[in-house]
Amino acid sequence: MTATTRLRSLHIGNINPHVKKAKYAVRGELAVRSEQYRAQLRKGDSGNLPFDTIVAANIGNPQQLDQQPITFFRQVASILENPALLKNEDALIKYMGYKKDVVERAKWLLKEVKSVGAYSQSHGAPGIKESIAKFIEQRDGYPSDPANIYLSNGASGGVNTLLHIICHSHETGVLVPIPQYPLYTATLSVLNARCVPYFLEEHKAWGTNLEEIKSALATAREEGTDVRAIVVINPGNPTGASLSEEDIQEVLKFAAEEKLVVMADEVYQTNVFMGKFVSFKKGLRDLQKSDANKDGKYDHIELASLHSISKGMVGECGHRGGYFELIGFDQEVQDQIYKFISIQLCPPVIGQCFVEMMVNPPKEGDESYELYKKEYDGIFNGLRERAYALWEAFKEMEGVECQDPQGAMYLFPTIKLSQKAIAAAEKEDRQPDDFYSHRLLDATGVCVVPGSGFGQKEGTLHFRTTFLAPGTDWVGRITKFHKEFMDEFRD
Amino acid sequence: MTATTRLRSLHIGNINPHVKKAKYAVRGELAVRSEQYRAQLRKGDSGNLPFDTIVAANIGNPQQLDQQPITFFRQVASILENPALLKNEDALIKYMGYKKDVVERAKWLLKEVKSVGAYSQSHGAPGIKESIAKFIEQRDGYPSDPANIYLSNGASGGVNTLLHIICHSHETGVLVPIPQYPLYTATLSVLNARCVPYFLEEHKAWGTNLEEIKSALATAREEGTDVRAIVVINPGNPTGASLSEEDIQEVLKFAAEEKLVVMADEVYQTNVFMGKFVSFKKGLRDLQKSDANKDGKYDHIELASLHSISKGMVGECGHRGGYFELIGFDQEVQDQIYKFISIQLCPPVIGQCFVEMMVNPPKEGDESYELYKKEYDGIFNGLRERAYALWEAFKEMEGVECQDPQGAMYLFPTIKLSQKAIAAAEKEDRQPDDFYSHRLLDATGVCVVPGSGFGQKEGTLHFRTTFLAPGTDWVGRITKFHKEFMDEFRD
Repeated sequence: MTATTRLRSLHIGNINPHVKKAKYAVRGELAVRSEQYRAQLRKGDSGNLPFDTIVAANIGNPQQLDQQPITFFRQVASILENPALLKNEDALIKYMGYKKDVVERAKWLLKEVKSVGAYSQSHGAPGIKESIAKFIEQRDGYPSDPANIYLSNGASGGVNTLLHIICHSHETGVLVPIPQYPLYTATLSVLNARCVPYFLEEHKAWGTNLEEIKSALATAREEGTDVRAIVVINPGNPTGASLSEEDIQEVLKFAAEEKLVVMADEVYQTNVFMGKFVSFKKGLRDLQKSDANKDGKYDHIELASLHSISKGMVGECGHRGGYFELIGFDQEVQDQIYKFISIQLCPPVIGQCFVEMMVNPPKEGDESYELYKKEYDGIFNGLRERAYALWEAFKEMEGVECQDPQGAMYLFPTIKLSQKAIAAAEKEDRQPDDFYSHRLLDATGVCVVPGSGFGQKEGTLHFRTTFLAPGTDWVGRITKFHKEFMDEFRD
Repeated sequence: MTATTRLRSLHIGNINPHVKKAKYAVRGELAVRSEQYRAQLRKGDSGNLPFDTIVAANIGNPQQLDQQPITFFRQVASILENPALLKNEDALIKYMGYKKDVVERAKWLLKEVKSVGAYSQSHGAPGIKESIAKFIEQRDGYPSDPANIYLSNGASGGVNTLLHIICHSHETGVLVPIPQYPLYTATLSVLNARCVPYFLEEHKAWGTNLEEIKSALATAREEGTDVRAIVVINPGNPTGASLSEEDIQEVLKFAAEEKLVVMADEVYQTNVFMGKFVSFKKGLRDLQKSDANKDGKYDHIELASLHSISKGMVGECGHRGGYFELIGFDQEVQDQIYKFISIQLCPPVIGQCFVEMMVNPPKEGDESYELYKKEYDGIFNGLRERAYALWEAFKEMEGVECQDPQGAMYLFPTIKLSQKAIAAAEKEDRQPDDFYSHRLLDATGVCVVPGSGFGQKEGTLHFRTTFLAPGTDWVGRITKFHKEFMDEFRD
């Protein structure tokens, strides 16, 4: 302890140990270093750097990487921010190219929230909750009750809320897929609860394996862990995997037998390139009306399904909008959820309005539909093309294997590194994939996240990269770096 | 336990007990009931209700109560949401009345954040942090370092972050003024840490009393509480009190002696009707360069100062913008704060832009200045007038006493209730002030928060009301109700 430390109330040795323990690599050391490079380049000081731009492939941040926002959403939002624009509706239409349906939507949303500068109800504006319920009904073919819908601060805010309720003590455990988006492990750390990892099957396109889940649960229970819930990320992050309805029902049946809450993180539901997205809600309702449920044993499954405006073709992550729907939850538990979220007042109201527009976009026949469809399809196709281009590049790289791009915004290739590279990593006190990712950043300006940040089977190495960055130059940078790295550390 | 409860994973008996223990009356039972009345009235079903509007005087939500947003802020925000408006700058100026400085500010902010739909750095966009530092320098006359500034999700997000770091175990304690804004006690409950209450002096206009604080600290330490920090809300919520620089320095000296972090909640810094706001930062720097600090004993005080766009003349609470500045904090502790906030990615980016505009509004000579000044002064004067009108009404009411309106958005009168009223409350299993507030809502549609929601000295009763609602009709409703209530329950 230094003299200054002794004078201070707080130092690294006495703050919250659970916060200290939490790990969140997506914005960790590599991301911080890449921001330093970016700041250096902004000052025009590219000096000794062997690249002139930073490619933030570490985080699903579409609009930072030039994805254009959808015009309809932003036109409506501009009116919500400045309703005085409606005083000259004609000019808005004539000179600014706004359509009638933009103006109407803005007027309707303003009626619902009064002002985007006012707090809403803590679980969100009632009219917006009704729109979400309609969307869910249309998507799944089953009713949805607005009373069970909670707007949130992105999906992350929803995960934080749900885990706060679920975690009863340091013995509480939650089944989390590995690899996973580290929000789950980090939040469980902060709550001093236990992450019960279950491994996904890389060679089966990162699908779930029920036997693996069962064995993870059994081991945890033997160790005295009170396992309460299972997290499923579908489509997968970082894996991109997309589950079949069969897989989904298997998880649901298992959850019913073991009395586990199912947390379905479905924020990538529109980012699906292979097959078709099936929601856990649909899987649940299908299961409940099937013969398998003759005796009603699946009637009481508790499902929380999360969605967000951050991903998909919307990509409005900076607006921090999202929601979760609760199915089968006890009313007294829901009352506690409401109280918990009320302490932070309400999610951003303009973000709530973006959620409304996401679930209720222009429809065929609406004036804005054509442009909306063109923009939406353009983004979707662009993402798919880039996913495949990157995947093709990985296929050519020595020691790299990568599952088919199925969905989400990521590829998560395996890399096989030489003993020499692993020894060099050890010398720097880094995991080998972290070492590789640091070298990649330093050589190319491309920032990825090492697999160790998401969890991976022992003895395997990966990294996660988004395929959001435009162009192909950066893929070439990776390919070139990789070849040089492999040559440098050849055993 | 019912049969259904046994089938579920979660029920009221097994969820997080610390969440269950938390209390947040500002959005509690009364607020929920008032929303039910509001929904009923919206459906045109005023049926048996003795009022036709709800007056939400329970919460500082200016724009829900018809406070108009400031034009400059909203014009800039509309461009941030739809930068395509800049394609026809001339029309924007000619037909929409936007000024050149609006366009310039929007362009500058867009350069800083790239898109309001993109994530920013977790502690906020660098350019916005620089603006905040300049504002603090101008306000206090002392330097401020952008590296120590953290944008947040309203001030509430900042409080949540700081308490997460400070609370080490269930023995950690934080000194909290009573009455207080219940965010503090609720968050400490969720964190399973201890609230160490210190009472404010009602008869001294709700000022701090150092002897009282010392005695609260001593008692807590005797009980084994590891007291780490002291919260000061200035101007006060719910009290409206505004501290002198002398009081501030007294608290700071005490904090230095006792090694306490000072958390200064300064969200009402522009809502001051009597005297002048002095920031804790200025108090600290003045103290540090004074003779009292010859030996450097005040060099290492840790201060966190919080501010927000929700209050003041800005009133943009629905946008969830705020920031905190850290002074004297250990760098390793700050690194943990950064990691903690990165788990939730970043505060809403449009909210960050509102923070920038709040701290850097149009200046004399700017095209938008005149209107800005007019709107700002109009809101300020309107609030002051309503505060005094309400205060005058309270002075006339039997058994009601109220300190002078000094600042913030609230009055917090004492009410003296009869034994008969107290007995009636007991019968309903309510605190007497809660009983009174329920009766008030049911009779008038005016929703206030009972003093028990903020804490109060035993044997005293209060309620908090905002003075945001326009007009005077609602004040009349309170006066009439109060008279009838007092008559009904006269001993």
